[in-house]
Amino acid sequence: MTARRLRSITPFHVMALLARARELEAEGREIVHMEIGEPDFDTPAPIVAAGIAALRAGHTRYTPALGLPALRQAIAADYRQRFGVDIAADRIVVTPGASGALQLLSALLVDPGSRVLMSDPGYPCNRNFVHLVGGEPAAIAVTAAQDYQLDAETVRRQWTPNTVAALIASPSNPTGSVLSRTAMDALLRAVRERDGHLLVDEIYQNLYYQSRPYTALELHDEVFVINSFSKYFGMTGWRLGWLVAPQAYIRSLDTLAQNLFLAAPTPAQHAALAAFHPQTLSILEHRRQEFRARRDYLLPALRGLGFIIEREPEGAFYLYADCSRFTDDSFRFATTLLESAGVAVTPGVDFGSHAAARHLRFAYTTSLERLQIGVQRLAEFLQRL
Amino acid sequence: MTARRLRSITPFHVMALLARARELEAEGREIVHMEIGEPDFDTPAPIVAAGIAALRAGHTRYTPALGLPALRQAIAADYRQRFGVDIAADRIVVTPGASGALQLLSALLVDPGSRVLMSDPGYPCNRNFVHLVGGEPAAIAVTAAQDYQLDAETVRRQWTPNTVAALIASPSNPTGSVLSRTAMDALLRAVRERDGHLLVDEIYQNLYYQSRPYTALELHDEVFVINSFSKYFGMTGWRLGWLVAPQAYIRSLDTLAQNLFLAAPTPAQHAALAAFHPQTLSILEHRRQEFRARRDYLLPALRGLGFIIEREPEGAFYLYADCSRFTDDSFRFATTLLESAGVAVTPGVDFGSHAAARHLRFAYTTSLERLQIGVQRLAEFLQRL
Repeated sequence: MTARRLRSITPFHVMALLARARELEAEGREIVHMEIGEPDFDTPAPIVAAGIAALRAGHTRYTPALGLPALRQAIAADYRQRFGVDIAADRIVVTPGASGALQLLSALLVDPGSRVLMSDPGYPCNRNFVHLVGGEPAAIAVTAAQDYQLDAETVRRQWTPNTVAALIASPSNPTGSVLSRTAMDALLRAVRERDGHLLVDEIYQNLYYQSRPYTALELHDEVFVINSFSKYFGMTGWRLGWLVAPQAYIRSLDTLAQNLFLAAPTPAQHAALAAFHPQTLSILEHRRQEFRARRDYLLPALRGLGFIIEREPEGAFYLYADCSRFTDDSFRFATTLLESAGVAVTPGVDFGSHAAARHLRFAYTTSLERLQIGVQRLAEFLQRL
Repeated sequence: MTARRLRSITPFHVMALLARARELEAEGREIVHMEIGEPDFDTPAPIVAAGIAALRAGHTRYTPALGLPALRQAIAADYRQRFGVDIAADRIVVTPGASGALQLLSALLVDPGSRVLMSDPGYPCNRNFVHLVGGEPAAIAVTAAQDYQLDAETVRRQWTPNTVAALIASPSNPTGSVLSRTAMDALLRAVRERDGHLLVDEIYQNLYYQSRPYTALELHDEVFVINSFSKYFGMTGWRLGWLVAPQAYIRSLDTLAQNLFLAAPTPAQHAALAAFHPQTLSILEHRRQEFRARRDYLLPALRGLGFIIEREPEGAFYLYADCSRFTDDSFRFATTLLESAGVAVTPGVDFGSHAAARHLRFAYTTSLERLQIGVQRLAEFLQRL
């Protein structure tokens, strides 16, 4: 007998697809991967070198639960430099990935029965962090017309007495859409009017392809911001992220971190000290340009094939495409596409239930050349339909 | 406003003591640390070398949520070699520290309102993992006469209809006491009679100083065993542990791991592949002998000073001492001892509420020479009382 929450916490369908893709590869098939939510770039060399140096220097013991002081300061310095915003280093909590930050926030803010607003489609784990602590994730259907983001009006309409927070991601996974500063400001006001908390996932913040990004921290000290070294800094497997919280919550977050995970991995924390070095930042800027080139290729190519992507996604490395011209069962479509054309994509069902069967997520986490092969295979596959 | 669970989740008092000790050191005082639950030995060189090689080879992406297949196999092989027990590698879940394993188990087995039996004194996070998911930790007072462990009789008496599991640690933190195979077997039967789960924390298993250890996995396939690379393998900061679960739960654990932490840190998993190499094991055996020598010195020395430690602790690196001859407020005693004699120890309150004010935990995670200085300072301190 497992706990009842297991009925609400679902596995990612993409995992089964990925496993099947690996099987096909083991049989000699060659697969174009557009399902993977992880950059295809290695961790930048200066970060790896810093990790190796840390291991050589014997940095293998626990750090304080809130993180290595030097790393908290480096993150604060980056906020100052990149966004001109002054964040005290002691408001920064270093976590085992953004997962650790999301978990801390659930434990900190969500009582059993408390409701957290979030978008559908959205990152699937968000729901489950709320389920974990007995809260109710309220996944609100958002449409292309809303740029797939919660807005102030929706939040006001959906707020109930047991709602405690709204969680948004900008840029969003799976849609890549970005909330404008004006929209974020309105959202923040709507949430604060109701004495709620605004939680902003900024893990794709520096993967932007249009206007320069901002951080919700510029708007108000009372937002909670989640970030990560995984996606932009290319450190997925290191498991390192951070949380910026209002000062009043840091003591409680320290207690929770001590209890839930003791501390983030030490070698990763030392390695991440090199993440903000000029040499690393120049590598990362180069990669951002490469992601932009991929998006600039893939977006019109998919549209040309008949997929509907109403607005141009401004960030992350995903395109969320309406495939209703071809199917009303995107999960089956994804399965057949993999089996018969060797192209792996993620079905909408992994991101919620709103119009999920009419959507697919394409990740451009593979080279332009591979994307071109993928698009050609897709074209042939669609002709055979 | 934070969630109500923050009222039940308490910070570790030892953290404040440790912080104060560091302040005193910064002022030039020289402190004997007997409060730290972390080995003073570095990560063994072959493990560090494997970590460096993994980073050089670019192993920095996510692994599968259940862990690197080669590591799961290496852990299974170690069970075979060390204990002669056959555990299928796919019953092993690699986790971010034992913390990750305890969290998975809470999420897997504990519904809101469900009760989990555990010992008082015990590892303080255990209570809080149960609090996290809305369960009720039932910390049962255990005495020196019971060797500070839950026994079958107590479990039968304390079991209620909403009790779902009993969690024990052998060797235990803070007492170092070991549950005999006979007692474990009786405990297991008592739990299974009531359709409950037995969760056994074996993270100090290989730090034994009397009879050779066994694993609860030898007794039955239906126990959950928590283990870690932190304490015996000297990998605390790497954040790596594991869980052995009955086969029927692996699928649910995979789903939970995907959602709660994606995967354990990749460099750590590759490094840990070297943990079972003969060269590493010989380093670890040498350290175990060193820990034993420290215990063999510290135990009679503390008894000689008037601390009561009824039974000889058989494992881990802790002595849990009754200090009632000197104080009825061990927290104040610990504070004064640090300030006036420069010796840091952990007050009983960090491990529960049963007779906590009459106990202190001494960790022998510092050299024999430092322990001798500590004991001498203690002796002088006690004379001045």
